[in-house]
Amino acid sequence: MSADEDVYRRQGFGASVGMGARPGLLVIDFTNGFADPAGFGGGNIAAAIARTQTLLAFARARRWPVAHSRIVFQGDGADANPFSRKIPGMLILTEDNPASHFVPALQPAAGELVVRKTVPSAFFGTALAPWLMQCGVDTLVVAGCTTSGCVRASVVDAMSAGLRVIVAADCVGDRATGPHEASLFDMQQKYADVMPFEAIRQLAEARSAEG
Amino acid sequence: MSADEDVYRRQGFGASVGMGARPGLLVIDFTNGFADPAGFGGGNIAAAIARTQTLLAFARARRWPVAHSRIVFQGDGADANPFSRKIPGMLILTEDNPASHFVPALQPAAGELVVRKTVPSAFFGTALAPWLMQCGVDTLVVAGCTTSGCVRASVVDAMSAGLRVIVAADCVGDRATGPHEASLFDMQQKYADVMPFEAIRQLAEARSAEG
Amino acid sequence: MSADEDVYRRQGFGASVGMGARPGLLVIDFTNGFADPAGFGGGNIAAAIARTQTLLAFARARRWPVAHSRIVFQGDGADANPFSRKIPGMLILTEDNPASHFVPALQPAAGELVVRKTVPSAFFGTALAPWLMQCGVDTLVVAGCTTSGCVRASVVDAMSAGLRVIVAADCVGDRATGPHEASLFDMQQKYADVMPFEAIRQLAEARSAEG
Amino acid sequence: MSADEDVYRRQGFGASVGMGARPGLLVIDFTNGFADPAGFGGGNIAAAIARTQTLLAFARARRWPVAHSRIVFQGDGADANPFSRKIPGMLILTEDNPASHFVPALQPAAGELVVRKTVPSAFFGTALAPWLMQCGVDTLVVAGCTTSGCVRASVVDAMSAGLRVIVAADCVGDRATGPHEASLFDMQQKYADVMPFEAIRQLAEARSAEG
Repeated sequence: MSADEDVYRRQGFGASVGMGARPGLLVIDFTNGFADPAGFGGGNIAAAIARTQTLLAFARARRWPVAHSRIVFQGDGADANPFSRKIPGMLILTEDNPASHFVPALQPAAGELVVRKTVPSAFFGTALAPWLMQCGVDTLVVAGCTTSGCVRASVVDAMSAGLRVIVAADCVGDRATGPHEASLFDMQQKYADVMPFEAIRQLAEARSAEG
Repeated sequence: MSADEDVYRRQGFGASVGMGARPGLLVIDFTNGFADPAGFGGGNIAAAIARTQTLLAFARARRWPVAHSRIVFQGDGADANPFSRKIPGMLILTEDNPASHFVPALQPAAGELVVRKTVPSAFFGTALAPWLMQCGVDTLVVAGCTTSGCVRASVVDAMSAGLRVIVAADCVGDRATGPHEASLFDMQQKYADVMPFEAIRQLAEARSAEG
Repeated sequence: MSADEDVYRRQGFGASVGMGARPGLLVIDFTNGFADPAGFGGGNIAAAIARTQTLLAFARARRWPVAHSRIVFQGDGADANPFSRKIPGMLILTEDNPASHFVPALQPAAGELVVRKTVPSAFFGTALAPWLMQCGVDTLVVAGCTTSGCVRASVVDAMSAGLRVIVAADCVGDRATGPHEASLFDMQQKYADVMPFEAIRQLAEARSAEG
Repeated sequence: MSADEDVYRRQGFGASVGMGARPGLLVIDFTNGFADPAGFGGGNIAAAIARTQTLLAFARARRWPVAHSRIVFQGDGADANPFSRKIPGMLILTEDNPASHFVPALQPAAGELVVRKTVPSAFFGTALAPWLMQCGVDTLVVAGCTTSGCVRASVVDAMSAGLRVIVAADCVGDRATGPHEASLFDMQQKYADVMPFEAIRQLAEARSAEG
């Protein structure tokens, strides 16, 4: 994408947002159904789940506010919507279906917010933005799946909600490589800083040393 | 992207949303600043603006509700935000700067909604969704720029707001080809029906004939 | 309040919004905890619940889209918020506590939307507005409790979301008379048409006869 | 309202939210049209405007983020909505009409946010919540008019957005006494701390002394 990148550089895209004083973590849709290549998973999602365990442990150790999202539809189909019209299989993700439950390695802990949703963004129609406001979060680190779907939609909304956003590049995954790479590129140019967990760790530790 | 496409097909993505009984049109950010390759424009944006003139005339002839969005920041920088932090040049788009004004060929007509925004989506923090609700719109046809930026963000929100979305493939443009193509692919798989204006015209006329 | 009313009349408040072609029904927070005078109930709430049974049966018979809201907080207190800080007892309304469950006489039926919330409005941070958009609802009839709390907040948001709102005066209740009456007055002047169920029934039947 | 108050006390309403570390100020709709008793004004609005000058000076001296809202409709009537259907005279409040401009004594200063709206709440369909998020505000002090209309609706939304809210009792006004008093009562019981400016000043100074 070097010719493309050149256009963005000339037009002044891709500046850094940096990390503020109060980071939080959002883990998006790492549920059994998205971990399963025969369900909605595949690609590098398993690797992202593995790496997110380290990120989540780091966030908890530093007492960052942590939120998780999952897709849940009503069992009677009452809340089927244009999103499920586009991807009909999504409607199996009901409260009782293990496919809608978080993977065992990334269960929410007490004190962490869980939001249910029926659309891509973890912010749209949920209490996530208000919760981050009351927690005083100024920078949202994002992990989850899929990069080109619910991650990207949530990143756009997090930025629009007034937050600096840092995408943990090795903690987000997608079922297909092309969309994964294309969305990382777009997010870095327009919405967020994109970097691997190790760089986020260093940034957070440098900030604490300053403070 | 054929290997990628195969994954999506196997997992049941990409069903059609179709056109409902009451379409509306949203024209996103076709302003001078985005028409100018030396500003935020370039790529196939000029071609998309040209084609949108035909689409807009068609929508008006059929009395579809029509809305337009533009990016406008305060002149004193008070509403600079994480989006403008990522793309600092955006802050020049103030009320009085011609770069923030609609291109001459696509001026809003009386009775059409205009929303100002400081983020990618034309829905986020605006009165657009309420206006479409009161107009009774059930299907939103989308034109504008950029495909991978404000168009895509608005398409995700339109769908999340309960609307069927049809992206007019030849009426959306981007400064770079890679992101344009990648977002058309993602939108077709997950959020909207993507088709050229000619197909939208035929669909609308077929629906009227039925009705 | 006749002197007050006079001011509103002189300034042109209190026009009628009327009923559109596609009404829907919203039943707000008629749960055991709000039915119980020793909980959050009392006043005329029991009478409103009784009357709402007739309204709900009417709405179902006419196949109006029906939605219900309930307050639900997480069991670990993670989503305690400024609302629960103001009314700490609200935090007992967890998923498993019968106080958060709908009263037996007003259980949701299959195909009806249920939204959980942690704030007064049934629209704020929920999928209610998108659902009404996709159902094509243009007029929202509102029942529930409390008149001066969650009903009023939801009425303001319903109107702001682009809907005509009709408050079923004998199907809304409050723990105290003063706030109940004051909110009915304000809503009639500024946000909604306020009338008893019997008038709503006649309006709906007249509309059908026309259609 | 002593019998009413007793019910609220028994049910545990009316706890204090207190002031956090980072207050902000919202001034709602103090425009010429609402200052004019022959327009939408009257009652104690003039007194509230006078008192808000002191509050605003105090907020600026302490470098609190300050936001202002005004109602503005399009000149062509395109964004007439259910609110203007209820109060048709509201549609005169167009960009060019002095009635929609802020009163001379309370002009926004550079660096202060101004939001336009067509509904009661200054949060609904505006960039206000994101701006407060990025400013790190945790407590919103509220002034403006009318107490039972746009102030109350904004207070409910501010609380729902995750903020502690303090209503400056002598800096909010209404065209009629009954609704003014009833809304102060409801807000104190359920949504916010209600106190005169002098108490807010003491609270803010005490907090600074602590810090």
